[in-house]
Amino acid sequence: MREVFQDQLHEVQDRLVEMAESVTHIMTDASSAFINSDVAMADRAIALAEANESKALTLDELVIRILARQSPVSRDLRILVSALRISASLERMGALAGHIAAIARYRFPGSAVPTSLKSTFEEMGRLDIDLAKKITKILRSTDADEARAIQAQDERVDQLHRHVFDVVLGDDWKENAMYTVDVTLASRYHERFADHVVDISSKISYLTTGEWAEQD
Amino acid sequence: MREVFQDQLHEVQDRLVEMAESVTHIMTDASSAFINSDVAMADRAIALAEANESKALTLDELVIRILARQSPVSRDLRILVSALRISASLERMGALAGHIAAIARYRFPGSAVPTSLKSTFEEMGRLDIDLAKKITKILRSTDADEARAIQAQDERVDQLHRHVFDVVLGDDWKENAMYTVDVTLASRYHERFADHVVDISSKISYLTTGEWAEQD
Repeated sequence: MREVFQDQLHEVQDRLVEMAESVTHIMTDASSAFINSDVAMADRAIALAEANESKALTLDELVIRILARQSPVSRDLRILVSALRISASLERMGALAGHIAAIARYRFPGSAVPTSLKSTFEEMGRLDIDLAKKITKILRSTDADEARAIQAQDERVDQLHRHVFDVVLGDDWKENAMYTVDVTLASRYHERFADHVVDISSKISYLTTGEWAEQD
Repeated sequence: MREVFQDQLHEVQDRLVEMAESVTHIMTDASSAFINSDVAMADRAIALAEANESKALTLDELVIRILARQSPVSRDLRILVSALRISASLERMGALAGHIAAIARYRFPGSAVPTSLKSTFEEMGRLDIDLAKKITKILRSTDADEARAIQAQDERVDQLHRHVFDVVLGDDWKENAMYTVDVTLASRYHERFADHVVDISSKISYLTTGEWAEQD
């Protein structure tokens, strides 16, 4: 029985890793679509975000099935409840990346980001993609160093988010309202994406694991 | 045993109702703070949003305790898992209302909303407050009519959200970038607030209840 349960936990873990990988792809496509006004890339990101949503549903059903059959307690129960929350965060991250792609799509053939903010969004995109990779790694096998790096990287994303506002609200900003709206929302989506990575990471360390991922 | 479990389910339900009531208060204060640039009201909304966050944590712990002790299956298990998700949505709704209050606070003593959009935000605020009241009622005792009304009301909020963009991107918009940023974000927060109400409502009807709230 215990062995079956461990297999089932590993299946949950595998699916979380798979979702995190898919979220990494969505943000990679979305960021590139946003920076380069690439509409085909935007469409791909939007389609992947929809697929990501059904992955979350399937994962949740799996967790509920395990809860019903195994009636786990204490640590095992907490792992499963955390898995539900992590899946919700990963679903939301996919949706946020999808929103960034949708902005690029909406403005096509124009660009959604003015030259003055291109490098800022390039960095934000790079950081978000890297955060998604880090959380994939942590979900695969807990790593305290990666968890600490996530904290620092999220702070940099927040900094860039504030920088976008500084630029938009500064005297030199002469762009039209459309740019203002687009960069405001896109910046917010990048920032929320990173927040979710921090949430997931804290849920994992809350389990004071090492065991969470005992793959051996 | 079954009776104890029913009592525990009712406690979960009571706490969800309490959270929904608190979210209604937060949005009431936040909307009024945003429209009238009332900084005291904004502070109250922000403090209530923080308290709402701890309510969600306490509720989640209660649900985990019940899961551990009662090992519920099928319908009972689904009710408890739904309660976790509803609590996450209610927490998020409080945070979104808190963000609206924070915009008002940030712009004080100036206003965050220009005259041309005041009535739009008044209506959005009213709709969001009413949606929060409706979901409180549904959590207290399932009501299919209210659930249908929620759908229609959310569509109106989406319409107003699009209207804000139409105004901001229209030729007559002469406001500065600060207004553009503030109304873009505030409108997005109002829209997400309503989305969460729809999510909660669909989670409840997914349980095809009547029983969920058997109070008698």
